[in-house]
Amino acid sequence: MNFRMIKNILGWILIFEAGFMLAPLLTAIIYSEEVFTSYLISMGICLLIGLLFIWRKPKDKTLYSREGFVIVSLSWIFLSIFGALPMFISREIPSYIDALFETVSGFTTTGASIVADVEELSHATLMWRSFTHWVGGMGVLVFVMAFVPLSGGNNMHIMKAESPGPSVSKLVPRVKTTALILYLIYIVLTLLEFLFLICGGMPIFDAINTSFATAGTGGFGVKRNSLLGYSSYIQIVTTVFMIIFSINFASYYLILLRRFKEAFTTEIRTFLGIVIAAITIITLNTVGLFDSVGEAIKHVSFSVASIISTTGFATVDFNLWPTLSRAVLVTVMFIGACAGSTGGGIKISRILIFIKSIAKELSLMLHPKQVRKVMIDKHPVEHEVVRATNVYMVCYVFTFIASVLLVSIEGFDLITTFTSVAATMNNIGPGLELVGPTGNFAFFNPFSKLVLIFDMLAGRLELFPMLLLFSHKTWKK
Amino acid sequence: MNFRMIKNILGWILIFEAGFMLAPLLTAIIYSEEVFTSYLISMGICLLIGLLFIWRKPKDKTLYSREGFVIVSLSWIFLSIFGALPMFISREIPSYIDALFETVSGFTTTGASIVADVEELSHATLMWRSFTHWVGGMGVLVFVMAFVPLSGGNNMHIMKAESPGPSVSKLVPRVKTTALILYLIYIVLTLLEFLFLICGGMPIFDAINTSFATAGTGGFGVKRNSLLGYSSYIQIVTTVFMIIFSINFASYYLILLRRFKEAFTTEIRTFLGIVIAAITIITLNTVGLFDSVGEAIKHVSFSVASIISTTGFATVDFNLWPTLSRAVLVTVMFIGACAGSTGGGIKISRILIFIKSIAKELSLMLHPKQVRKVMIDKHPVEHEVVRATNVYMVCYVFTFIASVLLVSIEGFDLITTFTSVAATMNNIGPGLELVGPTGNFAFFNPFSKLVLIFDMLAGRLELFPMLLLFSHKTWKK
Repeated sequence: MNFRMIKNILGWILIFEAGFMLAPLLTAIIYSEEVFTSYLISMGICLLIGLLFIWRKPKDKTLYSREGFVIVSLSWIFLSIFGALPMFISREIPSYIDALFETVSGFTTTGASIVADVEELSHATLMWRSFTHWVGGMGVLVFVMAFVPLSGGNNMHIMKAESPGPSVSKLVPRVKTTALILYLIYIVLTLLEFLFLICGGMPIFDAINTSFATAGTGGFGVKRNSLLGYSSYIQIVTTVFMIIFSINFASYYLILLRRFKEAFTTEIRTFLGIVIAAITIITLNTVGLFDSVGEAIKHVSFSVASIISTTGFATVDFNLWPTLSRAVLVTVMFIGACAGSTGGGIKISRILIFIKSIAKELSLMLHPKQVRKVMIDKHPVEHEVVRATNVYMVCYVFTFIASVLLVSIEGFDLITTFTSVAATMNNIGPGLELVGPTGNFAFFNPFSKLVLIFDMLAGRLELFPMLLLFSHKTWKK
Repeated sequence: MNFRMIKNILGWILIFEAGFMLAPLLTAIIYSEEVFTSYLISMGICLLIGLLFIWRKPKDKTLYSREGFVIVSLSWIFLSIFGALPMFISREIPSYIDALFETVSGFTTTGASIVADVEELSHATLMWRSFTHWVGGMGVLVFVMAFVPLSGGNNMHIMKAESPGPSVSKLVPRVKTTALILYLIYIVLTLLEFLFLICGGMPIFDAINTSFATAGTGGFGVKRNSLLGYSSYIQIVTTVFMIIFSINFASYYLILLRRFKEAFTTEIRTFLGIVIAAITIITLNTVGLFDSVGEAIKHVSFSVASIISTTGFATVDFNLWPTLSRAVLVTVMFIGACAGSTGGGIKISRILIFIKSIAKELSLMLHPKQVRKVMIDKHPVEHEVVRATNVYMVCYVFTFIASVLLVSIEGFDLITTFTSVAATMNNIGPGLELVGPTGNFAFFNPFSKLVLIFDMLAGRLELFPMLLLFSHKTWKK
């Protein structure tokens, strides 16, 4: 294990985090808020420790798969531990574990909050929360790697470990260029949403935060009733952008290159099919609860887009919907967005591999001697990817059950317990019952919060990097 | 597809079913009950159709994997359709779909009932319900195959499709002899339980039924409060036998051969470990609800044994327990018994393969070039078995979610909906809330009942045979 190299990269992460904190710092200056000092102190701490970590340059720059996973998990843990400082120092969130929960929820783009009334937070902290979503959405390490020439060129290990989805598609031969293209698309789309929101008369501060939170599919809002108070136009724009940010960014690149056929992959078609199916079923099931069919479609589309994109904004309390609608929403929670987007969940491409694996298995039972590969978009999926994906599912179920058992010790009702884990592990935010759209996560005890913090990180990093931290094999020579 | 051969075997199944009905027929004679005629008519129908089906002997006796699966699924469906006749003809269960539900629940050893008060049923029907458990526990086709020389010797396909667990261990080279040995063990153990119960002063009729229902890990009782009304001795004997029937029968054979080390497999050790862990956690969590620690241990052990063995007897309403205990019970519902026992659920041997797959995957991430096999009891598990097991899990999750969505249309609360599917797909019987130990399944509409009937069959036959029925590839030339 190349510990020197790990320390070096963690140092860079902290230096970048100090840079990220410029956003809330500027906000504090603009609104002349007291929290300014808290952010300044936190920046100082990040810079100081970061510089100490990068002081001695490692001689051996090689990183293997093993180091890649450790770096990714530790980076996210470090980011969160230090990112929680300002809220804790300013006493806006007096408990450190709560501040950590909020920060992890931010970076992992979960959006689950322990804050009862967000309107009591300073503008700077609201900005910091939204900005963590935006940073976390595309992945921090890939970002850092794009600017700092850290390792001997094999960043692929790290990109693989940090990117959502079963496989990384390189757009261009170089990892760094691929990362830059994806970030550019990300920035342009975020700007586009901001402009659309501004045109609808949304205050600039709200528009910036909403754009950041939508882009990262995070879901932290700046109003206590999320997006309920805004105009229908703003709600519809947000719905559309939640969907846009759930789609593989590589497709946007292909669209720019006018390779439309390639861009409209099976994954995207399946994703849109599921979205439409879910909206249809829930609208039919809940239409009686709304004033008009139009209202029903608007709110249901918003909720479905919010949940499947794993954003977590709300315009309506879907916890009050009938069982079928709630069951569909819970199902959609697990499905999640497309691979290569900022959304969480199990991911559509995995769902596709699952379905094809089942079809293959059934076919093998009928004709045991047949040789057959899992194909997606006319390309064979590598045997290793199929295996890893199926094992991922098993691993997912195990982690999920273990978390539910640990949270259930506290004794809240089963639906709260179950959906609190579902909403954090899939990086959504709200669940049902006590953690529904009108609730928050403050009432859990520190132990349950730690479990849910682990789930948010495990969900964002797709389980394996976090689980590897607990394996003795990772650490042995 | 060799349709003639399929028809022939289905014919034999019906003839055997007519034979099985001798048990309730004799009971009706002993208690001089009116239902006698209903059972006689049903026997006649089974015999008549059975004989018609076997009239023309097929020239081509070869059976391929494909036919094996179709035969297994259709046999269980036929058994259930005709097995439901007596209860329907006698108007003891006036709705045919309800009678079918009860019969499928019997043969699949689920034990979920639509009968509000079992004490209103005739002795003959109580006997029929318990006897279907006993017959279904070990598998019907394997039984028929042991007596009738049907195919050209390759019964392995059928045994594979009908036996629970990821792989069939042949005790002796011949399938037929293996089946006979296993049945002999089954009969002796059932007799043993009967004798133990009789010694505790249980009425003979109750003892026969309880033994049948325990042996098949079914759970239909003859009293409206299941086993609550019996003495502690009887409850403890039942607890022990529920555990005994959850253990791979091959181990008992090995014990008879004095190969103790081989008999005490990793699977059995894991199973007993989970049982003890679950009992410990729940006892600590619920001890305040009982008069004494002894009472707590007794009732908790009974409930855990009942759920993990997928029997479903009750001495206490565990629906009233705290969330942690309920969560542990729901988890244990899915785990289920050992492979090669009469118990249901996902099975311990699969859980072991899952855990080893995850370990292997994690290890491969650290050292991508490593070659490593999944090992259990120092034997490598074949690559195909590991793959099929992982795909089974995926398939299980999909079937489960689809069922929950379909049942949720009816709009009962999420826990009732979720656990009704869990309790049927894992062949347990009771779930939580409305389908808890004091409830029953009568309130569901016919559509939900059909979904749950499918789940019981799919769970008992381990998904693939039932799912293959819906694939066009199964039926094409």
